[in-house]
Amino acid sequence: MVHVETREFGRAIGLSCRECGALEKLGPIFACSQCFGPLEVAYDFGEISREEIVSGPPNIWRYRALLPVPPDVAEKPNLAPGWTKLVKADRLAAELGLRSLYVKDDSGNPTHSFKDRVVAIAVEAARAFGFRTLSCSSTGNLAGAVAAAATRAGLDSCVFIPADLEAAKIVMAAVYGGRIVGVEGSYDDVNRLCSELLGDPLGEKWGFVNVNLRPYYAEGSKTLAYEIAEQLGWRLPDQIVIPVASGSQLTKIDKGFRELIKLGLVEDKPYRVFGAQATGCAPVARAFKAGHDVVQPVKPDTIVKSLAIGNPADGPYVLDVVRRTSGAVEDVDDHEVVEAIRLLARTEGIFAETAGGVTVGVLRKLLRDGRLDPDAETVVLNTGDGLKTLDVVAGQARPTAVIRPSLDALRTAFAN
Amino acid sequence: MVHVETREFGRAIGLSCRECGALEKLGPIFACSQCFGPLEVAYDFGEISREEIVSGPPNIWRYRALLPVPPDVAEKPNLAPGWTKLVKADRLAAELGLRSLYVKDDSGNPTHSFKDRVVAIAVEAARAFGFRTLSCSSTGNLAGAVAAAATRAGLDSCVFIPADLEAAKIVMAAVYGGRIVGVEGSYDDVNRLCSELLGDPLGEKWGFVNVNLRPYYAEGSKTLAYEIAEQLGWRLPDQIVIPVASGSQLTKIDKGFRELIKLGLVEDKPYRVFGAQATGCAPVARAFKAGHDVVQPVKPDTIVKSLAIGNPADGPYVLDVVRRTSGAVEDVDDHEVVEAIRLLARTEGIFAETAGGVTVGVLRKLLRDGRLDPDAETVVLNTGDGLKTLDVVAGQARPTAVIRPSLDALRTAFAN
Repeated sequence: MVHVETREFGRAIGLSCRECGALEKLGPIFACSQCFGPLEVAYDFGEISREEIVSGPPNIWRYRALLPVPPDVAEKPNLAPGWTKLVKADRLAAELGLRSLYVKDDSGNPTHSFKDRVVAIAVEAARAFGFRTLSCSSTGNLAGAVAAAATRAGLDSCVFIPADLEAAKIVMAAVYGGRIVGVEGSYDDVNRLCSELLGDPLGEKWGFVNVNLRPYYAEGSKTLAYEIAEQLGWRLPDQIVIPVASGSQLTKIDKGFRELIKLGLVEDKPYRVFGAQATGCAPVARAFKAGHDVVQPVKPDTIVKSLAIGNPADGPYVLDVVRRTSGAVEDVDDHEVVEAIRLLARTEGIFAETAGGVTVGVLRKLLRDGRLDPDAETVVLNTGDGLKTLDVVAGQARPTAVIRPSLDALRTAFAN
Repeated sequence: MVHVETREFGRAIGLSCRECGALEKLGPIFACSQCFGPLEVAYDFGEISREEIVSGPPNIWRYRALLPVPPDVAEKPNLAPGWTKLVKADRLAAELGLRSLYVKDDSGNPTHSFKDRVVAIAVEAARAFGFRTLSCSSTGNLAGAVAAAATRAGLDSCVFIPADLEAAKIVMAAVYGGRIVGVEGSYDDVNRLCSELLGDPLGEKWGFVNVNLRPYYAEGSKTLAYEIAEQLGWRLPDQIVIPVASGSQLTKIDKGFRELIKLGLVEDKPYRVFGAQATGCAPVARAFKAGHDVVQPVKPDTIVKSLAIGNPADGPYVLDVVRRTSGAVEDVDDHEVVEAIRLLARTEGIFAETAGGVTVGVLRKLLRDGRLDPDAETVVLNTGDGLKTLDVVAGQARPTAVIRPSLDALRTAFAN
C-alpha cells in the first residue's frame, strides 16, 4: 500500500475492526458494519525517525506522525497536553524495595489528568467531521478536559456526569462555560444516556469524544507509551502498572509500545503490563483471577470515582494484553488507596488523585506478593490530581498544630 | 574579576546590598551588615549562549548558569519545575480588543503554582548550607511547594500558614507528611513569627525559604522572564502584567529581562511592567497612585489570599521598576477577580486561582482605561491554580441541569 498523508488524519488509512479485521473508511463511527466489533484507527506509517520526533514540540504533537491528526495540528488552538514528567522515584522505590522505579505523572497536564491527551485527538476529529459541539459521558476528569479543550478550540460543549461527583470535578467542568448535565445515576447510566442521545435529533450532530469519536480519542493514550519510552532514553520499561477504568488506556499503551518496536524506534524486548482497579469496582480483576475471557459487569462502590466503570468496554482486551505479556490485573480497597496516596505524597512530593492511589497500591501489593520483579525497571502511572479528590485525604492531611502567633505558643505546641 | 564556577552556587559571587551596594559572602543571610538593606545574589556570568540553554532540560535548570545553583543541579532529586506553557490567548485577546496576548500559565508547575520555581532554588541553598529542615511563612501556595520539594529532596519541613486558609491549600501542604502549623492571624503575623523563630534555638538551624534563604529563593522568579523571552523566540514582550504580593516576583522578572539584554541573549528594547493587586490588599497600588516612594502597610481584606501581604517587603522596588519602565500598579476588587477568572476559563480553558483573576482583571481595566497599548505584544501571568480556590467560583460554576437518566428528562431540561 502506498503511504498517503491526508490533510485531516495524517497517516491514518481507515478504521479496522478489532474483532473481524474489516477495514472501514475514516468517519464518526465506532462499531464495525460487519460484526459490530469496536473499531480502531489503522495506519500506514512508512518511516518515522527519532530525529523527527525529537525536533517536535514538548507536547503530544511531537508524535503527530503516529496519531490520526493533521500535519499542522501543533499550530491550531488546542491545550497542547502531554510531555509530562517521568519522575525517578528513588525514595518510593527504597520504601517498596524496588531497584528502579519511575512515576509517569500526568497530573502535569493542562486540566491535571491524562484525559487531556485523548480529548486533544478527539477535538481534531470533531473539527474534521464538522461537529460544532463536543460532548462526553464522564466520571469527572473527562468532563473538565472536554469543556476546557472545546473552549480553547472555539467549540461548544455539553458534558454529562453522575450528579454525585466530587465538588472539585463539577466546578472544574462548569467553569469553562460550556453546558454540564448532572445525571442521577451511575457512570454506566450516564454512558447509556449518551448513546441514546447520539441516535436522537438532539445529539446526532454532536461529537461524543468517547462514543462516536472513540476510535480517534482512544489513540491519545498511546502518547503515554511514546513518552515513557522516549523519556527512558528510547527504551521500553520491564514492567508497567496502569489503572483500568474502561480499559482503553491500558490497551493503547500496549499498542504504543508495539508500534515503537515495529517502527524500529526502540529495541524489541519483553515487557509486562499490569492493570490496577479499586476493589469496589474490579470487574476486570475478577475476570482475570477467575481465568475468564468475559468481564461480568458490577455495580461500583468505591471512593475511586474516576475508575468507577462497572461495565468496561475494553475489559476483554485488557485481559488479552496482561495474559500475553505475563502481567496481571489486581485490585486494592479504598483504605489501601488512601494509604498509597499518602505514601506517594510523603516520598516523592506527588499528590495523586484516587486513581494514582490505586496504581501505587497495586504496585505495592504485587511486590509484596512476589508477582513483580523488584530488580526490573518499573513504571507506575499517576493519571490524575489530588486536588480533585481532596476529601479522601482531608481527614488525615491536617495541620500539626494551630496556635496563636507567638513563640511561646509554638514551643507549647511542639512540646506536646 | 575572574569567572569562577563554584560547586555549590554556580556563577554567583556573593550577595550585594540593594541599598548600599556592599558585597557580602554567600551565606544564609538576608540583610546587609552595613545598612540592613535587603541582599540579592550577584554573579559573574561570563559568556552564556542560547545554545547552552536550549540544550538543557525542559525545566528551570536549562537556565542553571543564570542561577545560584550547582552545575549538576538537574541530576539531584528535586521537583524540576518550570518550562510551563506560554499560551497564545487569541480568544481572550479578541474579547479584550488586544492584538497579541500570551498567558504564561504557571499552574502547570508540579504543585500548580509559580512557588515551585523559587523553592527549587531555596532547596539547593539549604543543601549547600547544611540545613536539614525547610520552613516558610506562607499564604498557601508556598506551604505546599515547600512541603513537596522538601520531601522529594529528602529534607524535613515545617511550614507556617494563616489558620483560615482555603481548605485545598491546607490539605495540599499537609499531605506531603511534613509539619504544618496554622497560626491564628494574618500572613504578616505568620511572617513575624518566623522571623522570631529564626532567632530562637528552635528555628536557628532551619532554612526559611523566604527569610534566611530569601536572596537565593527570590532568584527563582527570574526564570519566568527567561522562559517568556525564550518562548517568544528570544524576544522581550512589549508589556507584561504581574501579580504583586511581596513584590519580589515583579522585581525579579525585570532583573531577568535586564540580564538577558546584558548577556546579548535578546535584543535591547523598551518594555513596560505592570503590577496587579487586589483592591482589598493594594498597598503598592495605593503608593503608586499617590506618587509615594514608601509603601504604607494595610490590613488585607480580600478573597485573594495568595496576594494578601499587607506589608510587602519589595514594595518600594516594585515602584522603582514600574516607574522606570513607564508601567503602573493597578488593583481590581473581588467581584472583578471572579469575573476575570471566569473570563479566562471561558475563553482559553485555563482555570486560574484568584491571583490569576487579579492579573487578567487588571489587564482588562488598564486596557479599558487606555493605559495599555492594544497593539503591543502583551504577556499576562497566571501564577496559580483554580482548584486551590474553588470556593470563589463554586457559586457560579454549577451544572446547567440535574436530571434523571432519560432522554425525556434531558429534553425537558433543555426546553426550560
